[in-house]
Amino acid sequence: MARLVMKFGGTSVADIDRIRNVARHVKREINAGHEVAVVVSAMAGTTDQLVAWCEAALKSRRIFDAREYDAVVATGEQVTAGLLAIMLQDMDIDARSWLGWQLPILTSNAHASARILDVNGAELTHRMSERKEVAVIAGFQGLHRETGRITTLGRGGSDTSAVAVAAAIRADRCDIYTDVDGVYTSDPRVVPRARRLDKIAFEEMLEFASLGAKVMQVRSVELGMVHNVRIFVRSSFDRPEDFDRNGTPPGTLICSEEEILEQHVVTGIAFSRDEAQISIRQVQDKPGVAAAIFIPLAEANINVDMIVQNVSADGKTTDVTFTVPAADYQRSLEVIAKARSAIGYARLDGAVDVAKVSVIGIGMRSHAGVAAQAFRALAERAVNIRAITTSEIKFSLLIDAAFTELAVRTLHSFYGLDQTTQ
Amino acid sequence: MARLVMKFGGTSVADIDRIRNVARHVKREINAGHEVAVVVSAMAGTTDQLVAWCEAALKSRRIFDAREYDAVVATGEQVTAGLLAIMLQDMDIDARSWLGWQLPILTSNAHASARILDVNGAELTHRMSERKEVAVIAGFQGLHRETGRITTLGRGGSDTSAVAVAAAIRADRCDIYTDVDGVYTSDPRVVPRARRLDKIAFEEMLEFASLGAKVMQVRSVELGMVHNVRIFVRSSFDRPEDFDRNGTPPGTLICSEEEILEQHVVTGIAFSRDEAQISIRQVQDKPGVAAAIFIPLAEANINVDMIVQNVSADGKTTDVTFTVPAADYQRSLEVIAKARSAIGYARLDGAVDVAKVSVIGIGMRSHAGVAAQAFRALAERAVNIRAITTSEIKFSLLIDAAFTELAVRTLHSFYGLDQTTQ
Repeated sequence: MARLVMKFGGTSVADIDRIRNVARHVKREINAGHEVAVVVSAMAGTTDQLVAWCEAALKSRRIFDAREYDAVVATGEQVTAGLLAIMLQDMDIDARSWLGWQLPILTSNAHASARILDVNGAELTHRMSERKEVAVIAGFQGLHRETGRITTLGRGGSDTSAVAVAAAIRADRCDIYTDVDGVYTSDPRVVPRARRLDKIAFEEMLEFASLGAKVMQVRSVELGMVHNVRIFVRSSFDRPEDFDRNGTPPGTLICSEEEILEQHVVTGIAFSRDEAQISIRQVQDKPGVAAAIFIPLAEANINVDMIVQNVSADGKTTDVTFTVPAADYQRSLEVIAKARSAIGYARLDGAVDVAKVSVIGIGMRSHAGVAAQAFRALAERAVNIRAITTSEIKFSLLIDAAFTELAVRTLHSFYGLDQTTQ
Repeated sequence: MARLVMKFGGTSVADIDRIRNVARHVKREINAGHEVAVVVSAMAGTTDQLVAWCEAALKSRRIFDAREYDAVVATGEQVTAGLLAIMLQDMDIDARSWLGWQLPILTSNAHASARILDVNGAELTHRMSERKEVAVIAGFQGLHRETGRITTLGRGGSDTSAVAVAAAIRADRCDIYTDVDGVYTSDPRVVPRARRLDKIAFEEMLEFASLGAKVMQVRSVELGMVHNVRIFVRSSFDRPEDFDRNGTPPGTLICSEEEILEQHVVTGIAFSRDEAQISIRQVQDKPGVAAAIFIPLAEANINVDMIVQNVSADGKTTDVTFTVPAADYQRSLEVIAKARSAIGYARLDGAVDVAKVSVIGIGMRSHAGVAAQAFRALAERAVNIRAITTSEIKFSLLIDAAFTELAVRTLHSFYGLDQTTQ
């Protein structure tokens, strides 16, 4: 017997038939003797409709009261939770819905992007163990205790709800049911030989998530890492016949390093084509110049990603290169041009036809030269590297966008990630 | 300065444009210096969709957990409340939404048809008078304190929410905005010369409401009567140019008798064609026989309306006539036939092509012979009266359905209710 949290996203609960499919998943776990809490999102499309209404409600102002926005959009998950509880009861499974304010799931006051502060799991664990009652929890929402108002966690927040609930009830596992069957070594649309990972460490998943592999919210992975919640990413469309001989369904377990016995040096290759590069030439090499560049960008709400600054050759000037989302390219150039006198530079150039390719693996910590070998492999394919940054478990390369697929596939093969049977 | 509750039903908040129209009504009252609480229904169609989903969620069982049903359907009003608050703020009016559990509006535990037990108006009145903040309250919903779960009041419950809030904050008036501009002496579709009443007593309105004039919920009128909440029925489509020279909009005030200076003997003529008549012939005239008839009907959930039992001529047998909704006619006959040995009767007959016409007016209390005169007027038009029942402020006639319009128009003219300028 295990205690499980099962989380289902919007496409998994898109209509009555799909919600019934969710109920079947729950029934399977109950029949296997497990204690279950379910976290649900809004039916696909519902949240978009609610957000559109909030936007249409404005005429004079440009932003709405986030407290009212939260009251409106939180209804999507409330509906799904009630419907799933009705269906489970219909299958003779004891179940009840829980809204954020009922448990409660306490959050900060940052409406529309609140952070979970505390989840009261006492009543849930009592009901699970005493009555085998399934808790059906509306994801994405919480309560700010002082004001007594509904908060929401921001888009994709149901993953975070699920992991927080799993931590609160000390669940053995948090199953994230999604429309893919796990985390892959790279995007299968670009790398046909990408394969599903059985396990991935929290730290690696954080790099994948923040690089835009849309499997899970960054915040939920962080929370899982802090509370050591084992997160299993699996498909809501899987069936028992897909399970292996031990009854394990296809999927990827996000867990602590210690649980990963067979470690590879490199776990996966991520990439992003939504990048623009800006290079500031012959910047004065003096204290405070980095601040002069990046504070105005932050104030303009531009998200700077890679930053490369080389050691000055002449001790006087240096070049600074950084990347921003492609959509912010023009605006970034303007911000830097405006700050020219404060920064002091000779020339400003950049490019939007660039891509970032990242090689990720906790094994890099103990293996030297992992990146170096890659450079040769890419050079052999005539892939020009514009810039390089590294961190403990990742290195990223900025290349011409046209070479993205070639570079990703080359690195994928080079690090032995290709599926052997295809 | 007055303190007002303004209630808007589903058609008045059917889409974003209509909700904006609601916001304009609120702005007008705020500009006039009033303190305002608004009670809103779900956008028209929303509740139907939510109910349909609950029903679709069932496969094995025939009824769903009403607690889950309530959690689902209460979302409709939550959305409208949030959207209206956003719109009011957009018009620079301080406003916030309140859900049933936030105020709270405490109710009984009878999920899906809960009764309001208490409304906490303290915070509302404080915010209204201190900050001129408009309270936007989700109608139809409440909280059961012991279980901490959302309840709903049953269809049309937002009227009841509005009147209960008005009582709690001691409002000067509760304005019910609807798609008609008031209460009429009769249904204008049948009686073209029907006219709008300026005022109607609670007791009269109760008779109108329970006779199916769909302007207001019976329960809300009862609540208004108990707490003496002045209720003003008006159109959500009225405009300031429709108001009279004193600034009074078209509408009907439901109030206590004392406030109605110029009393008519008869206030209006109501009717219902959805009636079936059942007559039980030569029933044993002995104690317990009425119970033997009506308890089985009640147990079958059949709503018996008129009951006529004449004094026995021979001291041995009598005839009992009653009416039921036309849809329950066959079922009622079966119930009575089954109970035949317990009742003891000679024959059972009935008809579905009957109508009930009711003449209503608090003036009847002090005027004798009001009904008697009507009988002659109807006889002159060859309208046959099947059965008669009377109460303190009303008498009802059962007639052949074909004569409904004729009878209603005849009585409407006879009691001087016809509009003089048309």
